[in-house]
Order: sequence, then C-alpha cells, then structure tokens
Amino acid sequence: MSESIVPINGGCITSSRGFQAGAIYAGINKHPPFGMDLALLYSQSPCKAFAMFTTNRVKAAPVLVCRDRLPSECIQALVVNSGVANACTGESGLKDAASMARLAAEKCGITPECALPMSTGVIGRPLPVERIASHLPLINLSTEGGTAFARAIMTTDTRPKEVAVKVTCSSGEYIIAGAAKGAGMIAPNMATTLCFITTDANIELEALKYCLKRAGEKSFNMITVDGDTSTNDTLLIMANGMAKNRLIAKGSKEMNLFQKALDQVCIFLARSVVSDGEGATRLITVNVSGAYTKNQAKLAAKAITGSNLVKTAIHGADPNWGRIISAAGSSGARFDESCVSLSICGMQIWRKGEIVGFEPSLLSNKLKQDEVVIDLDLNLGNGSATAWGCDMSEEYVTINSEYTT
Amino acid sequence: MSESIVPINGGCITSSRGFQAGAIYAGINKHPPFGMDLALLYSQSPCKAFAMFTTNRVKAAPVLVCRDRLPSECIQALVVNSGVANACTGESGLKDAASMARLAAEKCGITPECALPMSTGVIGRPLPVERIASHLPLINLSTEGGTAFARAIMTTDTRPKEVAVKVTCSSGEYIIAGAAKGAGMIAPNMATTLCFITTDANIELEALKYCLKRAGEKSFNMITVDGDTSTNDTLLIMANGMAKNRLIAKGSKEMNLFQKALDQVCIFLARSVVSDGEGATRLITVNVSGAYTKNQAKLAAKAITGSNLVKTAIHGADPNWGRIISAAGSSGARFDESCVSLSICGMQIWRKGEIVGFEPSLLSNKLKQDEVVIDLDLNLGNGSATAWGCDMSEEYVTINSEYTT
Repeated sequence: MSESIVPINGGCITSSRGFQAGAIYAGINKHPPFGMDLALLYSQSPCKAFAMFTTNRVKAAPVLVCRDRLPSECIQALVVNSGVANACTGESGLKDAASMARLAAEKCGITPECALPMSTGVIGRPLPVERIASHLPLINLSTEGGTAFARAIMTTDTRPKEVAVKVTCSSGEYIIAGAAKGAGMIAPNMATTLCFITTDANIELEALKYCLKRAGEKSFNMITVDGDTSTNDTLLIMANGMAKNRLIAKGSKEMNLFQKALDQVCIFLARSVVSDGEGATRLITVNVSGAYTKNQAKLAAKAITGSNLVKTAIHGADPNWGRIISAAGSSGARFDESCVSLSICGMQIWRKGEIVGFEPSLLSNKLKQDEVVIDLDLNLGNGSATAWGCDMSEEYVTINSEYTT
Repeated sequence: MSESIVPINGGCITSSRGFQAGAIYAGINKHPPFGMDLALLYSQSPCKAFAMFTTNRVKAAPVLVCRDRLPSECIQALVVNSGVANACTGESGLKDAASMARLAAEKCGITPECALPMSTGVIGRPLPVERIASHLPLINLSTEGGTAFARAIMTTDTRPKEVAVKVTCSSGEYIIAGAAKGAGMIAPNMATTLCFITTDANIELEALKYCLKRAGEKSFNMITVDGDTSTNDTLLIMANGMAKNRLIAKGSKEMNLFQKALDQVCIFLARSVVSDGEGATRLITVNVSGAYTKNQAKLAAKAITGSNLVKTAIHGADPNWGRIISAAGSSGARFDESCVSLSICGMQIWRKGEIVGFEPSLLSNKLKQDEVVIDLDLNLGNGSATAWGCDMSEEYVTINSEYTT
C-alpha cells in the first residue's frame, strides 16, 4: 500500500473522526463577521493534546490556563470566544478563563481539567463570563459543526480558514484537520492568531509534541503581518486516536509521514492567515537559500517579510529591490554583498552582487500578482528557510487607527 | 565663571568658528525640496573627526570610504549629495565615492584623504560623478552657507533640521552645531538618516570619540520611523579647535559638559528627524523606567516606538493602551505584568498590573497632542531609557508605495 496525503474537499476541523463542534452568538463580540462569537469543539474520546503558545511575556489568562493543563492525554473539549482576549486582566481574568473551561466541561459531561479555554479580541477588558454561562449550554454540537467553529473564532478576518487532509499509509488511514483565525487588529485591539488542529490519528504523545513543534516552526513561526506578537497566540493539536491506525511512534517512518501531513496543514493555514492579513492584497513568499545556518536563513527571510518598506513597495508594485537587500543586510544574518543573488517572481535582479540588466516595468507587472515570490541566495552555506508575509496598504493603517466601542 | 549651554538663535552647521558651507543643484535628485542636491562643508583648520555608521551589513560606498578615513585628525571637507545613495553599487561605487571626495579636496585645495564623501537617496543606482565634477567647483562657500547645506542634503524631509549651541565654561567658550536629514523613503528608495556635527571646541580625539558614541546611543540609536536600518546611516563629528579653549581631555569635568551639550544637539536633531518622519503627524516619546538593566529599558522603549500597532493607534487617537503593554511584553525585556505601571500623557492607565479607572475619551483627547509621552515603569530594577518615534498614517504607506522615475 503506497503512502498518500490527499486534501479533503470542504474539509473542516470536524473532518477528523469523533470530533463535533458548534457555535452561537453570545454577545461578546459586537460585530462578529458571521454572527457568532462562542465556539465549542468536543471529542468523543479523550485526546492527547499539546500546544505552542505566544512568546510574549504578557500572556492572556486562557494561555496560562492551557499551559498548566498541557501536555495532556485526557483533553475532550475546547471552548473559544472572540471579541475579548482576556489578556491584561489579572487574577480575575484567570478565574474567568477557568470558569469558561468549567462551563464547557459541564456542557460536555467531562471533568473540568479535560476542557481548554481560549479567547481572542480586545486586550484589557474583562471576559463576560455570565454571557458564556447562559449561551454555552445552547450550542448544538454536530460533526458538521466545524464550519461554524471556524467562523465563530474570527475577528477581523474576512474569510474562515480551515483545511483537512486524509493520510493513507501501511499502518492505516487517518485525518488531520484544522481551523485558524488571523492577525486582525481592527480597533479595538484584536492581536491574536489562533490555530486548532484535530486528528483521529493514533499517535504517541511524544511524537505529537515533536511534530507540532516542528510544524509550528515552519509555518506559524514563519509568518508576519505586522511584527507584533500577540498575548494570545496559540497553536493547539488534539489527537483522539479514533482512526485506530497502528500507533505512530516517535522517530518512526510513520511519524515522518504524519509530520509531512501536519506541515502541509499548518503551512496552508499559516499562509491563509497572512494572505488575509489586515488590508493585505498580496501574499509574499520569501525563500532564502545559501545562508550560513538555517537560523540565519530564517532571520533574513523574516526580516524581508517584516520590513514595512518592502511591504509598501510591493503594495505599490514598486520595483525597489534595494529595500529587500537592505532588509536582509540588517537582519543579523551573515551577509556578503558580493555573493548575493536575488530573483523576484522568477526574474533575476542581482547576481553575486552585480545588477542584472532588467526592465523595471516588467518587474512592476510581476509585483501585481496575487503571490509575490522572492528568492534570495546568500551563497555562504546550506541554510535555507521560507517565510510568508503580506503587503501593507493604506487600509492597514485605517483599520488600526480606528476605535470603535 | 559658571557653566552654561545656550541655544543659538538661527544656529546652523556653520555657526562653529572656521566652518564654511555651500550648496548647488547638480541634477542628481529629480525633486530636491529646496532646489539643491550637492552640499559642501569646509573647515579652515584640520579637524579631529569621528563617525558612527549604519549597522546594516550592506554599507553604502561612501560609508566604506569614510570608515577607512576615520578617525582622523586632518579632515577639512565633507561633500554630500542627495538623490542617489551610492549603495549596492559594487566596485564602481567605491571608485565613485573616492572620486567625489577627491573633487571636494581639489575645490578646497587640500589632500584627497582629508575630504569625506557622503550620499543619500536611491539604492542601486550609479552615482553621476560627472555632474558632481562639473557642479562642485561652482559652489560658493561662506560662513552663512550652513542653511543651504542643511537644505541640500534633504530628500523626503519636509523641513531642514539644524541647531547650534554655545557652551561656556571655565576653560573657554565653544560652539557645537549640526544638521541632519531624516528617514525619508518616498519612492524611489531614500532610506537614509545623516547627521553632521561641527564644533570649534579644542578637544582630544579620544574624548571626541567617547562623547560621540555616547550621544549617538542616546539620540539617533533611540529613534525609529519604520524600523528599517539604512545602508547609509551616518553620524559624523568634526572638531577644528578654533575656539582655542583649554584642551578638553577624556574623563575631565570639561568633557562632561561637552558631553551634555553634544547630547542636547544630537537629541534635538534626532527628535527633529522622527517628528518629520514620513507621513508623521505626532512625535511619540517613550520613557521606560524600572527595567532590570539599562539595555532592557532600551529594548522595551524601542519595541513600543517600533510597533506598527502602537503607531497606528496613536495616529487615530485610539486609547488602545493594551498594545503598548503587549509591545513591551514581546520586546525581550524582563517583564512581570503584576509590577507594571503605565501612564500616557500624564494620565495613569495601569498601576502594578491593575487597570486604573479612566475615561477613554479623555485619553483619546490627549493622544491628539503634537507630542505623546508614554511613561512605562517596569518596577524590576533601575534601568531607564527614552526612545522617540512617530505615528503611522495612511500617508506613510502612500509615500512608500509610489514609484517615481
């Protein structure tokens, strides 16, 4: 039997066996894009679960609660609200996050520690727990509820982000699915990227942790919309084992396939987040090769996607390639101008530090594509990395300058 | 005799004794704000000179030439063009920068090594040396030429930036003066901040180096417009000793006064640069105190001025204080939420991690002031620092999205 990873048409977070979800409007988010702001995910069987959290030293209360409960082998529910981040809320915020989890556990008939809370929205406002208490019991859980889940966690996203793939291998067949919300910070302050992954794969907790860390490094840790790290950023995976495939062990060939599929899911969702960044009109993909080390390749790639000057130039289809070189030069990565080659959308611009004759208007046309691909070869070693970002438009500033109460 | 540092009304870079300057239009910059793009500064006596340069690994050709010639005790001329940065121009760029200096030396009747070249403007275009050769001899040098000098080095600046102070002390009386140009990156690419300081003080070279480094750290290294480090950034000082004060020695009381005056000059010019940042409508001053170390205070202060979310919120007078806390929290500085206090424009918002009741509309009004002052006390140690930045407007994006050839 050959190995395969196949996308599931219309896949969503409940595509994995045994997962149900649902959502409702609880009045927490004033303007939820799809009229829902409270979502619940439930697994029939206990899940092995693990998460990567924001590196911001200011961590939202639900992040602290989840951090305490993970890794775990008994997670069965996840409750998420949009509209209020429950960050910078002190002791009462911690109590509120725990209450939210307890309410989800009651709804699902499980013990409180087996439920996880998460929030996204305005920093510094108290979570309206009473609204959660009154609306959570009314949520209708179903295997089709994944789409509602993905919509209810949105803040300033313009479209839901969800995906599922079916993995087939000698040890069985399983599904990896996920939903994410993007970096939306329309006033008030919504500085949060959340991504939740489900899988019915039967996998060791240690293998699950290993794979999530690797996938997170390659995907969500390689995207930027505006360089601000949120207080709530979370990438969570729940594996309930219901596919009954032969247990995937750490270091096995099967784990490598699981990794590959999880990478695909995470990269798909991460790219969806940046291409729907606030005010974004273009996805920017930066491939750095020939760096002295892999970490230096990451540094250079992220410096380019993070540069306001690169972002605005691409927004205006301005062939200002010098900004790309300058951003990489100040990234901290080793850099020798006379070694560097640069191509943009397949067009060679610089070869070993010398300008290649090219027609600026042709480059400008290429910069108008939906995805702009920048290939930078530092020619110093074997380190390579890919980062994703988006252009910066006037709308980005408008969105983030407005205050709406 | 008491010590004093007094601003000179209408002071400019030629306020220091023995300095002359002049400028002309040489056709290098297509749209020079004041119709000049080539400036020359000359000192009657040889100067002790030292400079701090960009940390970008991509350094413009004139930066490399200056770096080779400094520190020095024989500098007498400085020639600066706007419109072309002479960066990413390879070997020919280096020759062009040296030619530019040689032409200035010929004009002034000094040896080539005693002249310094500097450029600001588009990256990746060759310097039109023939235009410099034909126009430089026509520049009219005079002691009133400082104002023309400050205007000719401008790119997207909307106003010239110049200052002079007179220092009086027991050892004599001297002047420190300077001119700067700002981070203007209107298309094409002008990613350059330049600052030139003159003084007629009689000072040891070692004391001059020490003081410039300290002043640079406190001023130009604490400002940000958009976080992009240029290929040309330069802070240069020239001291010709013509005030004939008693030699200022390193570590002396006189040096401390010189330091204080130089700090004032540099901070004034650095603040002028950010308040005239592209599209800026407000100056943002961030005072961080109580950090674990001074470096951590700098990190936190610069993270706040560098945050697009803080910059856009202040642009919209949006009282989104959570963005300030979040930016500081992800700066890398030690941070304990429960210790932190925050005031904005004198209004207390957060006290030791708890929200102080305040009226958002009052805060919003304060954010409409020309200068917004943010005071953040981390309450962890004695480290403190001040950083300056500006708000981010739609105009910033517009300016940097446009390409004009």
